[in-house]
Amino acid sequence: MTQIPVGVLGASGYTGRELCKLVLAHPCLELAFAAANDQQGTVARVGGHQLVFTPASEAPLNQVALVFSALPHGVSGAWVQRANAAGARVVDLSSDLRPGRGVDATPLAKNLAEAPYGLTELCRAAISNAEVVANPGCYPTAALLALAPLIERDLIAPNASIIINAASGVTGAGNSPTRELLFAEVTEDFRAYGVGNSHRHVNEMRAAVDGWRGRADLDLVFTPHLLPVARGILASMVVPLRTALADPLAPWREAYAEEPFIVVSPDPPALSHVVHRNIVSISACMVVSRQPTLLVMSAIDNLLKGAAGQAMQNANLMLGLPEHLGLPS
Amino acid sequence: MTQIPVGVLGASGYTGRELCKLVLAHPCLELAFAAANDQQGTVARVGGHQLVFTPASEAPLNQVALVFSALPHGVSGAWVQRANAAGARVVDLSSDLRPGRGVDATPLAKNLAEAPYGLTELCRAAISNAEVVANPGCYPTAALLALAPLIERDLIAPNASIIINAASGVTGAGNSPTRELLFAEVTEDFRAYGVGNSHRHVNEMRAAVDGWRGRADLDLVFTPHLLPVARGILASMVVPLRTALADPLAPWREAYAEEPFIVVSPDPPALSHVVHRNIVSISACMVVSRQPTLLVMSAIDNLLKGAAGQAMQNANLMLGLPEHLGLPS
Amino acid sequence: MTQIPVGVLGASGYTGRELCKLVLAHPCLELAFAAANDQQGTVARVGGHQLVFTPASEAPLNQVALVFSALPHGVSGAWVQRANAAGARVVDLSSDLRPGRGVDATPLAKNLAEAPYGLTELCRAAISNAEVVANPGCYPTAALLALAPLIERDLIAPNASIIINAASGVTGAGNSPTRELLFAEVTEDFRAYGVGNSHRHVNEMRAAVDGWRGRADLDLVFTPHLLPVARGILASMVVPLRTALADPLAPWREAYAEEPFIVVSPDPPALSHVVHRNIVSISACMVVSRQPTLLVMSAIDNLLKGAAGQAMQNANLMLGLPEHLGLPS
Amino acid sequence: MTQIPVGVLGASGYTGRELCKLVLAHPCLELAFAAANDQQGTVARVGGHQLVFTPASEAPLNQVALVFSALPHGVSGAWVQRANAAGARVVDLSSDLRPGRGVDATPLAKNLAEAPYGLTELCRAAISNAEVVANPGCYPTAALLALAPLIERDLIAPNASIIINAASGVTGAGNSPTRELLFAEVTEDFRAYGVGNSHRHVNEMRAAVDGWRGRADLDLVFTPHLLPVARGILASMVVPLRTALADPLAPWREAYAEEPFIVVSPDPPALSHVVHRNIVSISACMVVSRQPTLLVMSAIDNLLKGAAGQAMQNANLMLGLPEHLGLPS
Repeated sequence: MTQIPVGVLGASGYTGRELCKLVLAHPCLELAFAAANDQQGTVARVGGHQLVFTPASEAPLNQVALVFSALPHGVSGAWVQRANAAGARVVDLSSDLRPGRGVDATPLAKNLAEAPYGLTELCRAAISNAEVVANPGCYPTAALLALAPLIERDLIAPNASIIINAASGVTGAGNSPTRELLFAEVTEDFRAYGVGNSHRHVNEMRAAVDGWRGRADLDLVFTPHLLPVARGILASMVVPLRTALADPLAPWREAYAEEPFIVVSPDPPALSHVVHRNIVSISACMVVSRQPTLLVMSAIDNLLKGAAGQAMQNANLMLGLPEHLGLPS
Repeated sequence: MTQIPVGVLGASGYTGRELCKLVLAHPCLELAFAAANDQQGTVARVGGHQLVFTPASEAPLNQVALVFSALPHGVSGAWVQRANAAGARVVDLSSDLRPGRGVDATPLAKNLAEAPYGLTELCRAAISNAEVVANPGCYPTAALLALAPLIERDLIAPNASIIINAASGVTGAGNSPTRELLFAEVTEDFRAYGVGNSHRHVNEMRAAVDGWRGRADLDLVFTPHLLPVARGILASMVVPLRTALADPLAPWREAYAEEPFIVVSPDPPALSHVVHRNIVSISACMVVSRQPTLLVMSAIDNLLKGAAGQAMQNANLMLGLPEHLGLPS
Repeated sequence: MTQIPVGVLGASGYTGRELCKLVLAHPCLELAFAAANDQQGTVARVGGHQLVFTPASEAPLNQVALVFSALPHGVSGAWVQRANAAGARVVDLSSDLRPGRGVDATPLAKNLAEAPYGLTELCRAAISNAEVVANPGCYPTAALLALAPLIERDLIAPNASIIINAASGVTGAGNSPTRELLFAEVTEDFRAYGVGNSHRHVNEMRAAVDGWRGRADLDLVFTPHLLPVARGILASMVVPLRTALADPLAPWREAYAEEPFIVVSPDPPALSHVVHRNIVSISACMVVSRQPTLLVMSAIDNLLKGAAGQAMQNANLMLGLPEHLGLPS
Repeated sequence: MTQIPVGVLGASGYTGRELCKLVLAHPCLELAFAAANDQQGTVARVGGHQLVFTPASEAPLNQVALVFSALPHGVSGAWVQRANAAGARVVDLSSDLRPGRGVDATPLAKNLAEAPYGLTELCRAAISNAEVVANPGCYPTAALLALAPLIERDLIAPNASIIINAASGVTGAGNSPTRELLFAEVTEDFRAYGVGNSHRHVNEMRAAVDGWRGRADLDLVFTPHLLPVARGILASMVVPLRTALADPLAPWREAYAEEPFIVVSPDPPALSHVVHRNIVSISACMVVSRQPTLLVMSAIDNLLKGAAGQAMQNANLMLGLPEHLGLPS
């Protein structure tokens, strides 16, 4: 069978390597290039393969059907434009094209500004036909896939504040060697960061929620934390409801009955259920309290469902392949 | 100088050992016994000392000025009664005497039912004179010391839901060898437990808040999580306010200006700041949101400020010693 | 295609679960039973499947082609006999049938006493035809596969002491909930155990080396250590040679050129290269010293190549299937 | 009481901070400066104090009685000379002045070349009178304090190879932010490095052993490993003896009977026994083998007994203070 050539920009980071690994294991794709300026010429072991990183400037953008860009925020946008101009469709894993990127961000060309948001399970039609897709951030993926069925069923109380506490493993912060990500700084520690709704993912989540069924009345309070683990995100969300739910799992069981990558369970999800798998594990329970209040929990592998895995779902859709191809569920 | 004899019941658990360590290092106390039925006869290294555990039935309760009970919930109450009847004052670290223990709990004798709640910084007068003190749980200590200045200043919005997300190291769950606390089950994992306000500490916190300045209108939503670390608790609390605070740290700076064991800082607290120290580290910031909302964070070492350290503060008060004696700040 | 029915005894431990996972993912095998007396009736998540453990007494031993026994040492032997008498071939993962089990061990029936040692790469012919195979221990697998090419080429100095230092993750110690395997006891710690050649794997290794090319002159000094990791074994071995090797990797490159599960590399192996894979990663280098001395290092996943993975290689051989089927390399 | 002013060069690294912490907690010393060019102006929390790092060029070298240099290897030597010329005595924690530094190292001025090796328990007289002391490396401290009683009693077999396997926590590698020390690279991993006697500490150990009682016949094979822990070193050493020892702990019990910082025990030492303490924990046992062979194990905190703690023992001696002052035992 003919393999479809695809390439990876920003291939040396944790997300980039995970993308290469998925492409190399994919039954219908072929890795045409793995570009990484910071490690060009380096040979890396990725998923049992030896991989040589090439400079981005030498990446044959015009010879691939699709490019994954895992370049840094602020750098990626221009390369997405270049790759698309060269004829490749693009899944951009940076925040450059995402909703909520802010009015002070660099203005985008029309094709990029209109890139659909790649929350696969919720936006399949738009993704399938897109030239360029803005792959969601890891925290928004965990939160929005869990909140969507509540919003779509209009279950959330008016003017509610949704409190999103989340914790991420260190690969969520990338692999630039900074002091605060050293083993000795992270082990046996835990702390919040980006507090007071200052993390850039807040705007991404707000933009998504604002546009959803007119629920601009909802407020979000998002507090991320750094976990002493390599991979995984757990979000614990407290949601005021209009009325109590008799079956607190019903919204997800209905909404996601046919989804291969979404697991709904009465047990609180754990990182160990989701790491190295491209799934979201969701649970919910009513809280014993005065107001009808729901606790919703979701867990993902930040490098798979929160980044490379969802990007591959999107690429499969864009290339007309079965969405689950090459993905560990 | 004459040393004051004290004893420890339930000395073999993590909290019991920490109590023994503090007593052994205390300039004015002497460890008269370390009782542990499950490990009687065992020699343990505690803080550089060799310690032999004796059976509880052989503990000379009538020869000590004070007993720390770190016995399990449901077992401790009867031993507290026995020790007090033998003439010893008691700091009980179980939940048996705490507020919120529930109407279905075993009825307590009057002297136990009236045991003051040992949140040291807030209840010094009652503690100093008490025969028996109910030492607070670890999560309530982290939450209530952080929330108290807001309640006392009447800053919290009416009918507010206070969302308390907290995460604890595994020593918070005791050292009974259960499968889910094995290293291989905990490392690289993270999950919520006791969800939906089902953790027994919820009632302890509610009882405390209900009794406080008449704020029975407040609601609490508490979600604990299990962290892959040995020690430490971090609580991240979202609190709706009546109005925004110009200086979000002012309530704590005012309330705790003279407290040696409370650190207030603009930086989010981290477990690494507090482990092996008997302090609470508190921070707060306004959240960018539609309603005036405060994020309050507090961190403690669950075995020190959350258990043995606070117990020692209380014992010092009860014995007429300076409160900080024998405690690492 | 018809699936071959196989069963697992002792399915609830770490090794048992790994075996179930491999069987469930195997293209030609079907899991007929997963027996575990200590957790009978429990539903466990194994590799994305829901698994119900049955009592061993109800396991249909006469309806399967092959049984994997991951029962405890001392218990397994009798069940192996029972399963084989019922018509099933058996791979026994306990130490009951292994060489070096000692003269004071329970005498074995002839068919068990003659069970070949299942070091797959070195004993294929005997394994293929065996009714019962004694699957090697994890430490011996790591050490012997690395030492074999040196012994076969007669490179080791006469009367040499081979110094084997090894470190294992905690799953190597099983999942009985004992205090010393609790997270809080293992994290940030490291220590030797079974020191002075007292670990039972010493006799297994000696028995193997003694029988090999007449090198009964060789001595072994084995020191295992407990690592704060879930999975993986690393062995660092110092081997006195007859003469220095110009190419220190040559013995392994020659011996294992065709082996899909053995990786030879000039870089020291790391646990991260081998966990969740059924491989041995081997490296070696000459030591700058007065005598010709070689440092040999090998790494495996103790649950895969060190237990369930090698057992599956052996089962594939016994069932006439390609040896690599159903195994992550 | 008048405090003695001392300063720290290279104060921002893990060792430098530990030195500052010890000085700040010392009853007779005063921290005159904490110099760190890479973080000048930064305020750091060290042991509950706020510390501001100054540029090294502004350190008042002529106003202190003693300087600790924790500067990098290759940089430290010149600063030691400068500080000593300014009138300060110096404890140098780099390798610049240590034995075995090699003939290709920069030639040292006479006063530096003659700096005694600061293995406190073995070299007290020379240290007390020295202007400048070469503080030993962490691995050599762990190994040499354990081997010394065997060499001094002439117990080691002629021409023996001493096999030293050791493992260190990541703070042993300093706190330069390099990729291989990131949390995600170290957690759940383990590997050897500096293999084949290529680690610079080999020469330091050899130089020490060669000069000892004429045992230049002894050979060393040293293999360090990187542990997923923050602090601590464990060395497991296999030593061929002239004859078996009836009491394998006797050499250490005799040699170190009066030493407050050396613990001798029949139990294998663990990192958890020694971290945050300035002790060496030593154990030994005869190995069941053909030749009389001893297994010797020693554990230290690499930042305390392996660096800052031993440096403080030396400084106390140089300043005429009791050796144990300001040190956690």
